[in-house]
Amino acid sequence: MSLEIERKFLIKNEDFKKEAYLKKRIKQGYLNSDKSRTVRIRIADNKSFLTVKGKSNSSGTTRFEWEKEIDINEAEQLLLLCESSIIDKTRFYVKSENHIYEVDEFYGDNIGLVVAEIELISENESFQKPTWLGEEVTGNKSYYNSCLSKIPFKNW
Amino acid sequence: MSLEIERKFLIKNEDFKKEAYLKKRIKQGYLNSDKSRTVRIRIADNKSFLTVKGKSNSSGTTRFEWEKEIDINEAEQLLLLCESSIIDKTRFYVKSENHIYEVDEFYGDNIGLVVAEIELISENESFQKPTWLGEEVTGNKSYYNSCLSKIPFKNW
Repeated sequence: MSLEIERKFLIKNEDFKKEAYLKKRIKQGYLNSDKSRTVRIRIADNKSFLTVKGKSNSSGTTRFEWEKEIDINEAEQLLLLCESSIIDKTRFYVKSENHIYEVDEFYGDNIGLVVAEIELISENESFQKPTWLGEEVTGNKSYYNSCLSKIPFKNW
Repeated sequence: MSLEIERKFLIKNEDFKKEAYLKKRIKQGYLNSDKSRTVRIRIADNKSFLTVKGKSNSSGTTRFEWEKEIDINEAEQLLLLCESSIIDKTRFYVKSENHIYEVDEFYGDNIGLVVAEIELISENESFQKPTWLGEEVTGNKSYYNSCLSKIPFKNW
Protein backbone atom coordinates (compact mmCIF):
# COMPACT_ATOMS: atom_id res chain seq x y z
CA MET A 1 0.00 0.00 0.00
CA SER A 2 1.58 3.25 -1.07
CA LEU A 3 1.12 6.58 -2.78
CA GLU A 4 2.54 6.68 -6.29
CA ILE A 5 4.04 10.03 -7.27
CA GLU A 6 5.03 10.21 -10.90
CA ARG A 7 5.43 12.52 -13.89
CA LYS A 8 4.90 11.54 -17.46
CA PHE A 9 6.44 12.81 -20.70
CA LEU A 10 6.43 12.23 -24.43
CA ILE A 11 9.81 11.72 -26.11
CA LYS A 12 11.70 13.68 -28.78
CA ASN A 13 13.67 10.76 -30.21
CA GLU A 14 14.64 7.15 -29.55
CA ASP A 15 18.00 7.82 -27.90
CA PHE A 16 16.54 6.35 -24.70
CA LYS A 17 16.96 2.89 -26.27
CA LYS A 18 20.74 3.28 -26.38
CA GLU A 19 20.77 4.35 -22.72
CA ALA A 20 18.46 1.60 -21.42
CA TYR A 21 20.06 -0.93 -19.03
CA LEU A 22 17.04 -3.27 -19.08
CA LYS A 23 13.87 -3.91 -21.03
CA LYS A 24 10.78 -6.00 -20.39
CA ARG A 25 7.84 -7.04 -22.53
CA ILE A 26 4.61 -6.29 -20.67
CA LYS A 27 1.06 -7.49 -21.30
CA GLN A 28 -1.70 -5.98 -19.19
CA GLY A 29 -5.44 -5.60 -19.04
CA TYR A 30 -8.01 -3.96 -16.81
CA LEU A 31 -10.76 -5.53 -14.73
CA ASN A 32 -11.79 -1.94 -14.12
CA SER A 33 -10.61 1.20 -15.85
CA ASP A 34 -12.90 3.64 -14.10
CA LYS A 35 -11.22 6.98 -13.33
CA SER A 36 -11.80 6.58 -9.58
CA ARG A 37 -10.26 3.12 -9.30
CA THR A 38 -8.44 0.83 -11.71
CA VAL A 39 -7.82 -2.89 -11.24
CA ARG A 40 -4.98 -4.07 -13.45
CA ILE A 41 -3.67 -7.54 -14.32
CA ARG A 42 -0.05 -7.42 -15.56
CA ILE A 43 2.28 -10.13 -16.83
CA ALA A 44 5.93 -9.12 -17.24
CA ASP A 45 8.94 -11.44 -17.39
CA ASN A 46 7.12 -14.47 -15.95
CA LYS A 47 5.82 -12.50 -12.98
CA SER A 48 2.22 -11.45 -12.60
CA PHE A 49 0.55 -8.83 -10.46
CA LEU A 50 -2.90 -7.57 -9.60
CA THR A 51 -2.73 -3.83 -8.94
CA VAL A 52 -5.40 -1.47 -7.63
CA LYS A 53 -4.94 2.26 -8.16
CA GLY A 54 -7.11 5.05 -6.78
CA LYS A 55 -7.99 8.45 -8.15
CA SER A 56 -5.26 10.99 -8.90
CA ASN A 57 -4.93 14.20 -6.94
CA SER A 58 -5.77 17.42 -8.82
CA SER A 59 -2.30 17.82 -10.36
CA GLY A 60 -2.35 14.20 -11.54
CA THR A 61 0.97 13.36 -9.87
CA THR A 62 -0.16 11.24 -6.89
CA ARG A 63 -2.29 8.09 -6.70
CA PHE A 64 -3.03 5.42 -4.11
CA GLU A 65 -1.54 2.08 -5.24
CA TRP A 66 -1.86 -1.47 -3.90
CA GLU A 67 -0.19 -4.46 -5.55
CA LYS A 68 -0.19 -8.21 -5.00
CA GLU A 69 1.79 -10.87 -6.87
CA ILE A 70 -0.41 -13.60 -8.33
CA ASP A 71 0.09 -16.91 -10.12
CA ILE A 72 0.92 -16.49 -13.82
CA ASN A 73 -1.64 -19.08 -14.99
CA GLU A 74 -4.30 -17.34 -12.95
CA ALA A 75 -3.21 -14.00 -14.45
CA GLU A 76 -3.67 -15.44 -17.96
CA GLN A 77 -7.22 -16.50 -17.00
CA LEU A 78 -7.96 -13.10 -15.48
CA LEU A 79 -6.67 -11.33 -18.62
CA LEU A 80 -9.43 -13.12 -20.55
CA LEU A 81 -11.98 -11.42 -18.29
CA CYS A 82 -10.56 -7.94 -18.83
CA GLU A 83 -12.30 -5.02 -20.51
CA SER A 84 -11.70 -4.14 -24.15
CA SER A 85 -8.18 -4.47 -25.54
CA ILE A 86 -5.05 -5.77 -23.82
CA ILE A 87 -2.07 -3.39 -23.64
CA ASP A 88 1.12 -4.77 -25.17
CA LYS A 89 4.35 -2.81 -24.76
CA THR A 90 8.08 -2.95 -24.13
CA ARG A 91 9.29 -1.06 -21.07
CA PHE A 92 12.84 0.35 -21.25
CA TYR A 93 14.60 1.26 -17.97
CA VAL A 94 16.94 4.26 -18.21
CA LYS A 95 19.08 5.56 -15.31
CA SER A 96 19.20 9.33 -14.91
CA GLU A 97 21.27 10.48 -11.94
CA ASN A 98 19.49 9.00 -8.90
CA HIS A 99 16.25 8.30 -10.77
CA ILE A 100 15.03 5.76 -13.27
CA TYR A 101 12.91 6.62 -16.29
CA GLU A 102 10.56 3.88 -17.43
CA VAL A 103 9.89 4.37 -21.12
CA ASP A 104 7.00 2.44 -22.65
CA GLU A 105 6.94 1.71 -26.38
CA PHE A 106 3.44 0.50 -27.29
CA TYR A 107 2.35 -2.01 -29.92
CA GLY A 108 -0.95 -3.14 -31.40
CA ASP A 109 -3.65 -0.47 -31.36
CA ASN A 110 -1.27 1.92 -29.59
CA ILE A 111 1.61 1.61 -32.03
CA GLY A 112 3.50 4.88 -32.49
CA LEU A 113 3.02 5.95 -28.89
CA VAL A 114 6.04 6.16 -26.56
CA VAL A 115 5.69 7.54 -23.02
CA ALA A 116 8.37 8.11 -20.36
CA GLU A 117 7.58 8.10 -16.63
CA ILE A 118 9.64 9.02 -13.63
CA GLU A 119 8.67 8.05 -10.08
CA LEU A 120 9.42 10.58 -7.36
CA ILE A 121 9.54 10.45 -3.56
CA SER A 122 7.80 13.82 -3.14
CA GLU A 123 5.92 16.12 -5.48
CA ASN A 124 8.61 18.78 -5.27
CA GLU A 125 11.62 16.51 -5.80
CA SER A 126 13.89 17.77 -8.58
CA PHE A 127 15.07 15.47 -11.37
CA GLN A 128 17.25 15.59 -14.46
CA LYS A 129 15.63 15.77 -17.91
CA PRO A 130 17.52 13.76 -20.54
CA THR A 131 17.87 15.30 -24.03
CA TRP A 132 15.39 12.81 -25.50
CA LEU A 133 12.65 13.84 -23.04
CA GLY A 134 9.77 15.73 -24.68
CA GLU A 135 6.54 17.46 -23.66
CA GLU A 136 5.13 16.77 -20.19
CA VAL A 137 1.73 15.02 -20.18
CA THR A 138 1.35 14.36 -16.41
CA GLY A 139 -2.30 14.33 -15.44
CA ASN A 140 -3.57 13.92 -19.02
CA LYS A 141 -5.83 10.90 -18.58
CA SER A 142 -5.69 9.95 -22.28
CA TYR A 143 -2.19 8.62 -21.60
CA TYR A 144 -3.29 6.39 -18.71
CA ASN A 145 -2.85 2.78 -19.80
CA SER A 146 -6.38 2.16 -18.52
CA CYS A 147 -7.66 4.78 -21.00
CA LEU A 148 -5.44 3.48 -23.82
CA SER A 149 -7.09 0.07 -23.43
CA LYS A 150 -10.47 1.73 -24.15
CA ILE A 151 -9.49 4.55 -26.54
CA PRO A 152 -6.24 3.41 -28.16
CA PHE A 153 -3.74 5.81 -29.74
CA LYS A 154 -4.73 4.80 -33.31
CA ASN A 155 -8.19 6.34 -32.69
CA TRP A 156 -6.95 9.70 -31.39
CA MET B 1 -9.80 -20.50 -9.88
CA SER B 2 -13.13 -22.25 -10.20
CA LEU B 3 -16.62 -22.19 -11.60
CA GLU B 4 -19.25 -21.23 -9.07
CA ILE B 5 -22.59 -23.02 -9.53
CA GLU B 6 -25.31 -21.70 -7.27
CA ARG B 7 -29.05 -21.13 -6.94
CA LYS B 8 -30.65 -18.30 -5.06
CA PHE B 9 -33.99 -18.02 -3.23
CA LEU B 10 -36.04 -15.63 -1.18
CA ILE B 11 -37.33 -16.91 2.18
CA LYS B 12 -40.83 -17.47 3.58
CA ASN B 13 -39.99 -16.98 7.25
CA GLU B 14 -37.07 -16.71 9.66
CA ASP B 15 -36.98 -20.35 10.77
CA PHE B 16 -33.55 -20.61 9.14
CA LYS B 17 -32.15 -18.69 12.14
CA LYS B 18 -33.11 -21.54 14.52
CA GLU B 19 -31.45 -24.07 12.20
CA ALA B 20 -28.22 -22.11 11.62
CA TYR B 21 -25.04 -23.71 13.03
CA LEU B 22 -22.88 -20.62 12.37
CA LYS B 23 -23.21 -16.95 11.51
CA LYS B 24 -20.78 -14.30 10.33
CA ARG B 25 -20.99 -10.53 9.96
CA ILE B 26 -19.78 -9.56 6.49
CA LYS B 27 -18.77 -6.18 5.10
CA GLN B 28 -18.04 -5.96 1.40
CA GLY B 29 -17.62 -3.47 -1.40
CA TYR B 30 -16.91 -3.50 -5.12
CA LEU B 31 -13.95 -2.12 -7.02
CA ASN B 32 -15.97 -3.07 -10.08
CA SER B 33 -19.59 -4.10 -10.29
CA ASP B 34 -19.83 -4.37 -14.06
CA LYS B 35 -22.01 -7.30 -15.21
CA SER B 36 -19.10 -8.87 -17.12
CA ARG B 37 -16.67 -8.86 -14.22
CA THR B 38 -16.90 -7.93 -10.56
CA VAL B 39 -13.98 -7.26 -8.20
CA ARG B 40 -15.05 -7.61 -4.58
CA ILE B 41 -13.32 -6.75 -1.29
CA ARG B 42 -14.82 -8.70 1.64
CA ILE B 43 -14.06 -8.65 5.36
CA ALA B 44 -15.65 -11.44 7.41
CA ASP B 45 -14.54 -12.68 10.81
CA ASN B 46 -11.10 -11.06 10.68
CA LYS B 47 -10.33 -12.56 7.30
CA SER B 48 -10.25 -10.55 4.09
CA PHE B 49 -10.46 -11.55 0.46
CA LEU B 50 -10.26 -10.02 -2.97
CA THR B 51 -12.56 -11.93 -5.33
CA VAL B 52 -12.97 -11.63 -9.09
CA LYS B 53 -16.12 -13.06 -10.68
CA GLY B 54 -16.88 -13.34 -14.39
CA LYS B 55 -20.12 -13.19 -16.31
CA SER B 56 -22.89 -15.69 -15.58
CA ASN B 57 -23.98 -18.27 -18.12
CA SER B 58 -27.43 -17.79 -19.66
CA SER B 59 -29.29 -19.55 -16.83
CA GLY B 60 -27.45 -17.47 -14.23
CA THR B 61 -26.26 -20.54 -12.30
CA THR B 62 -22.55 -20.64 -13.23
CA ARG B 63 -19.79 -18.02 -12.93
CA PHE B 64 -16.00 -17.98 -13.10
CA GLU B 65 -14.56 -17.15 -9.67
CA TRP B 66 -11.04 -16.35 -8.46
CA GLU B 67 -10.24 -15.49 -4.85
CA LYS B 68 -7.14 -14.39 -2.94
CA GLU B 69 -6.77 -13.77 0.79
CA ILE B 70 -5.42 -10.30 1.58
CA ASP B 71 -4.30 -8.39 4.67
CA ILE B 72 -7.21 -7.01 6.70
CA ASN B 73 -5.71 -3.50 7.03
CA GLU B 74 -5.19 -3.40 3.28
CA ALA B 75 -8.78 -4.58 2.80
CA GLU B 76 -10.02 -1.68 4.96
CA GLN B 77 -8.06 0.74 2.75
CA LEU B 78 -9.39 -0.89 -0.42
CA LEU B 79 -12.98 -0.68 0.89
CA LEU B 80 -12.54 3.12 0.97
CA LEU B 81 -11.86 3.03 -2.77
CA CYS B 82 -14.97 0.99 -3.57
CA GLU B 83 -17.93 2.14 -5.65
CA SER B 84 -21.10 3.47 -4.05
CA SER B 85 -22.34 1.85 -0.84
CA ILE B 86 -20.75 -0.93 1.20
CA ILE B 87 -22.83 -4.08 1.73
CA ASP B 88 -23.33 -4.98 5.40
CA LYS B 89 -25.01 -8.30 6.25
CA THR B 90 -25.06 -11.33 8.53
CA ARG B 91 -24.60 -14.68 6.82
CA PHE B 92 -26.29 -17.68 8.48
CA TYR B 93 -25.06 -21.19 7.61
CA VAL B 94 -27.75 -23.88 7.58
CA LYS B 95 -27.12 -27.59 6.92
CA SER B 96 -29.61 -29.32 4.64
CA GLU B 97 -28.76 -32.98 3.98
CA ASN B 98 -25.38 -32.89 2.20
CA HIS B 99 -25.61 -29.19 1.29
CA ILE B 100 -25.23 -25.90 3.11
CA TYR B 101 -27.55 -22.96 2.62
CA GLU B 102 -25.95 -19.55 3.14
CA VAL B 103 -28.67 -17.11 4.14
CA ASP B 104 -27.83 -13.40 4.02
CA GLU B 105 -29.78 -10.93 6.13
CA PHE B 106 -28.96 -7.43 4.91
CA TYR B 107 -28.72 -4.16 6.86
CA GLY B 108 -28.37 -0.49 5.98
CA ASP B 109 -29.85 0.44 2.61
CA ASN B 110 -30.78 -3.21 1.99
CA ILE B 111 -32.64 -3.77 5.26
CA GLY B 112 -35.62 -6.09 4.88
CA LEU B 113 -33.91 -8.23 2.24
CA VAL B 114 -32.99 -11.85 3.06
CA VAL B 115 -31.57 -14.15 0.38
CA ALA B 116 -30.64 -17.86 0.61
CA GLU B 117 -28.01 -19.43 -1.66
CA ILE B 118 -27.00 -23.01 -2.21
CA GLU B 119 -23.77 -24.00 -3.96
CA LEU B 120 -23.91 -27.08 -6.21
CA ILE B 121 -21.29 -29.30 -7.82
CA SER B 122 -23.19 -29.55 -11.11
CA GLU B 123 -26.12 -27.69 -12.62
CA ASN B 124 -28.34 -30.77 -12.43
CA GLU B 125 -27.53 -31.79 -8.87
CA SER B 126 -30.66 -32.28 -6.76
CA PHE B 127 -31.05 -30.68 -3.34
CA GLN B 128 -33.55 -30.52 -0.51
CA LYS B 129 -35.72 -27.42 -0.07
CA PRO B 130 -36.31 -26.51 3.58
CA THR B 131 -39.81 -25.32 4.57
CA TRP B 132 -38.60 -21.73 5.02
CA LEU B 133 -37.27 -21.54 1.44
CA GLY B 134 -39.28 -19.22 -0.83
CA GLU B 135 -39.36 -18.12 -4.47
CA GLU B 136 -36.31 -18.85 -6.64
CA VAL B 137 -34.49 -15.73 -7.92
CA THR B 138 -31.44 -17.40 -9.55
CA GLY B 139 -30.18 -15.29 -12.45
CA ASN B 140 -32.06 -12.15 -11.39
CA LYS B 141 -29.23 -9.64 -11.38
CA SER B 142 -31.03 -7.24 -9.00
CA TYR B 143 -30.16 -9.67 -6.21
CA TYR B 144 -26.43 -9.71 -7.02
CA ASN B 145 -24.61 -8.04 -4.13
CA SER B 146 -22.75 -5.98 -6.74
CA CYS B 147 -26.11 -4.60 -7.94
CA LEU B 148 -27.39 -4.09 -4.39
CA SER B 149 -24.39 -1.85 -3.72
CA LYS B 150 -25.56 0.40 -6.59
CA ILE B 151 -29.37 0.00 -6.44
CA PRO B 152 -30.12 -0.99 -2.84
CA PHE B 153 -33.31 -2.79 -1.81
CA LYS B 154 -34.82 0.37 -0.22
CA ASN B 155 -34.96 1.95 -3.73
CA TRP B 156 -36.73 -0.97 -5.44
